[in-house]
Amino acid sequence: MKLNSDLGESYGIWKMADDRAILPLIDMANIACGFHAGDAMVMRNTVVAAIENQVEIGAHPSYPDLQGFGRRSMRLPAEELHAMLIYQLSALDGIAQCVEGAVTYMKPHGALYNDMMKDFGVFQTVVEATSSFYRPIELVIQAGLHNSAYQQIASKNGVTLRYEAFADRRYMPSGQLTPREQQGAVLSLKEMVEQAKMLIKDGRVKASDGSWLALEADTLCVHGDSTDALQAIQQIRSLL
Amino acid sequence: MKLNSDLGESYGIWKMADDRAILPLIDMANIACGFHAGDAMVMRNTVVAAIENQVEIGAHPSYPDLQGFGRRSMRLPAEELHAMLIYQLSALDGIAQCVEGAVTYMKPHGALYNDMMKDFGVFQTVVEATSSFYRPIELVIQAGLHNSAYQQIASKNGVTLRYEAFADRRYMPSGQLTPREQQGAVLSLKEMVEQAKMLIKDGRVKASDGSWLALEADTLCVHGDSTDALQAIQQIRSLL
Amino acid sequence: MKLNSDLGESYGIWKMADDRAILPLIDMANIACGFHAGDAMVMRNTVVAAIENQVEIGAHPSYPDLQGFGRRSMRLPAEELHAMLIYQLSALDGIAQCVEGAVTYMKPHGALYNDMMKDFGVFQTVVEATSSFYRPIELVIQAGLHNSAYQQIASKNGVTLRYEAFADRRYMPSGQLTPREQQGAVLSLKEMVEQAKMLIKDGRVKASDGSWLALEADTLCVHGDSTDALQAIQQIRSLL
Amino acid sequence: MKLNSDLGESYGIWKMADDRAILPLIDMANIACGFHAGDAMVMRNTVVAAIENQVEIGAHPSYPDLQGFGRRSMRLPAEELHAMLIYQLSALDGIAQCVEGAVTYMKPHGALYNDMMKDFGVFQTVVEATSSFYRPIELVIQAGLHNSAYQQIASKNGVTLRYEAFADRRYMPSGQLTPREQQGAVLSLKEMVEQAKMLIKDGRVKASDGSWLALEADTLCVHGDSTDALQAIQQIRSLL
Repeated sequence: MKLNSDLGESYGIWKMADDRAILPLIDMANIACGFHAGDAMVMRNTVVAAIENQVEIGAHPSYPDLQGFGRRSMRLPAEELHAMLIYQLSALDGIAQCVEGAVTYMKPHGALYNDMMKDFGVFQTVVEATSSFYRPIELVIQAGLHNSAYQQIASKNGVTLRYEAFADRRYMPSGQLTPREQQGAVLSLKEMVEQAKMLIKDGRVKASDGSWLALEADTLCVHGDSTDALQAIQQIRSLL
Repeated sequence: MKLNSDLGESYGIWKMADDRAILPLIDMANIACGFHAGDAMVMRNTVVAAIENQVEIGAHPSYPDLQGFGRRSMRLPAEELHAMLIYQLSALDGIAQCVEGAVTYMKPHGALYNDMMKDFGVFQTVVEATSSFYRPIELVIQAGLHNSAYQQIASKNGVTLRYEAFADRRYMPSGQLTPREQQGAVLSLKEMVEQAKMLIKDGRVKASDGSWLALEADTLCVHGDSTDALQAIQQIRSLL
Repeated sequence: MKLNSDLGESYGIWKMADDRAILPLIDMANIACGFHAGDAMVMRNTVVAAIENQVEIGAHPSYPDLQGFGRRSMRLPAEELHAMLIYQLSALDGIAQCVEGAVTYMKPHGALYNDMMKDFGVFQTVVEATSSFYRPIELVIQAGLHNSAYQQIASKNGVTLRYEAFADRRYMPSGQLTPREQQGAVLSLKEMVEQAKMLIKDGRVKASDGSWLALEADTLCVHGDSTDALQAIQQIRSLL
Repeated sequence: MKLNSDLGESYGIWKMADDRAILPLIDMANIACGFHAGDAMVMRNTVVAAIENQVEIGAHPSYPDLQGFGRRSMRLPAEELHAMLIYQLSALDGIAQCVEGAVTYMKPHGALYNDMMKDFGVFQTVVEATSSFYRPIELVIQAGLHNSAYQQIASKNGVTLRYEAFADRRYMPSGQLTPREQQGAVLSLKEMVEQAKMLIKDGRVKASDGSWLALEADTLCVHGDSTDALQAIQQIRSLL
């Protein structure tokens, strides 16, 4: 089970999270590409740091919305969304190749990630963009109860999926995450480690109603934006 | 002598120039990369059209300034300018590779082009960025009376230069272009064709004071933003 | 019946429509405020031209989306949408006051206009923002079959509405406009003038299915983005 | 002697400084207007907080450069800079008026501030923009050895100047600030309080070479971006 985390989300003078602290603890860095966060300098520095830590480099593309941090859903024509994904993916990949790295996967960010998991039309576009990249890369999506529907679309387009589960978010019985604005959506340090343990050892998680959900996940998403979060990752790391 | 032209300078709903009309007449398309003009859709469409017309694809990166169309000089740390160039270059190159094309050269845009020709520090950064790209690409700069100084820096960094001359702008005796805001800076249709003829046949051009300037140019920059301009290019094309 | 038109939709170097040609023919200028189009220079020039032509100045605020021209729906928290409306309104109003003009009304643009007419939550926020402006201004919304529902919300907040009808768009029997992407959505020159005549003389319009719709409109929206469109406005003007 | 501070410099999800902590300690809040920092929400929240703390509201306009935080000099035509200043000033002023506040002064930000102090052409434009606002507002500039030259231009345009000195920056014998990138440019907590004391009590400051500079200042600029900085302001406050 690999640990992935969203990195490179600073912008200009504004700093976000302590990428240097989390990089030694994770396996995959989802790096912002300038549309919701990140700029050319931030991207390059993050790529360099990822390589130094032997962490896989993933593109973390978004709707074009810096002020809203890519968290606002936008309805885009498929053709335009496709082009925006390739633009972001290519920018990061080129930056990485200039320092002898390379993007190996893509994980959409924020509202685009949510839209992709809710709307098969959006998912289809994301898969096609991934597939159209000139070099094979993989696509990270959320592990859920209906993996096979996504799998089918991906396979048809020759795209390999990686399923991710969340260590720090409470699941609903449907397999979806409890929305951020709801109470208890984000787990405590202790709960986070507990949930990670269940996912790693048993491939299941306890939902908000106490029921068990079987989740086949290849990677666990963790965040390092607080000392608690960092501590949690250290403990999860030691489980692996 | 190859003809090059700035293309893909539409943005969102706003259209600029008639790229479709000029593409069959030129050899090299300098394509905007989203910082002064161009967006992901415009870039992809322009790349596809360039390939259809067997026109070489060049990156046309800029200072980050959409509202000012990259025509306002900005002082950037070398490291940041370097990163911005790689970002833009990579975005366009990836888009091109996804449709079986590839960027073969870079030509900076607007104020960045001017700064590069005036300030060896900026030129050094542009050369280093070109050189650091993970695949060899060439760099287009302005042909002038002091080519050797630029040549030296480029050679030291293993970068091949292409020198360009301008068909549509009046030269000053110094070898520089008459600034746009001055009377007579932009040539008439007839003058444009005349100047192109002199450049192609004799490798020289008549400056604003009537003196002759020897200009060794590999490529001629033309614009297709008016019916006059298009007519001029057709006539220049027939000279080649 | 007043004629209103969307103006000031150029941005930086990119020009849109011929504002100078349409200004003498209209009564109300809906001026872009920088979020979907317009920049400080464009806004000031448009305001000055409106004043010269004794045309009323209206704010034409939008979702923050230059690349999409404000035509992509975005879900924003009410508080944030409210703040964005006041920002845009204030920017235009201050510019106007500096040249002895003033904003007298607001008309939301593009996707925000559509969302406001479809979703009473969005309409409520737009009304509250209008009402919270430090000086009374009016709000332009689309005349339809259910004016009273909108009227009630506006009255409760002390906001005066102006209802607008469209000269150049085909109505559906529901009172809504035929979506732009559908055939026949935009009327021909002759149809436009005919529809304007019906609206002005009889307060009704023929819908796409041939049925009659009664529309109580205070103002007619016209566009000047083609020679046909300009001709139509000239003919409509002569009807008034 | 009034204390002024740059506030409202968060943007979207990114936070900067603790405005709530510093507001009770200062007299004048220079509030970002969206061009280098600040967005509509941030601006409104900052304005409301300033009013609650009975702190004067000033516009803190900038070159249009979010990614560079307005710290990169840009050469703009006077007419365009003028329009940009009025746009920003008006946006903030309208937001303030909607909550029964009002902008009373303007203080340019970052590179624009530096350019204004170095280039009388830029200063002239800033003064004209201030003067053209539809309501009298004052202009904050740096107190130096040549106040009278600035005073003359301001007086000719009917603009009242406020001179500011810096508590936290080391002065050069010329009266200018030691550039940030130089060692010792930013004072320690103890030095800051000492410098403030000299400015308040004696109207003079010790320059980097040990010489005394007479500075007639109306207001002292302080920053609250660290616990040290906050402590310094508390001590300076107690001197007043």
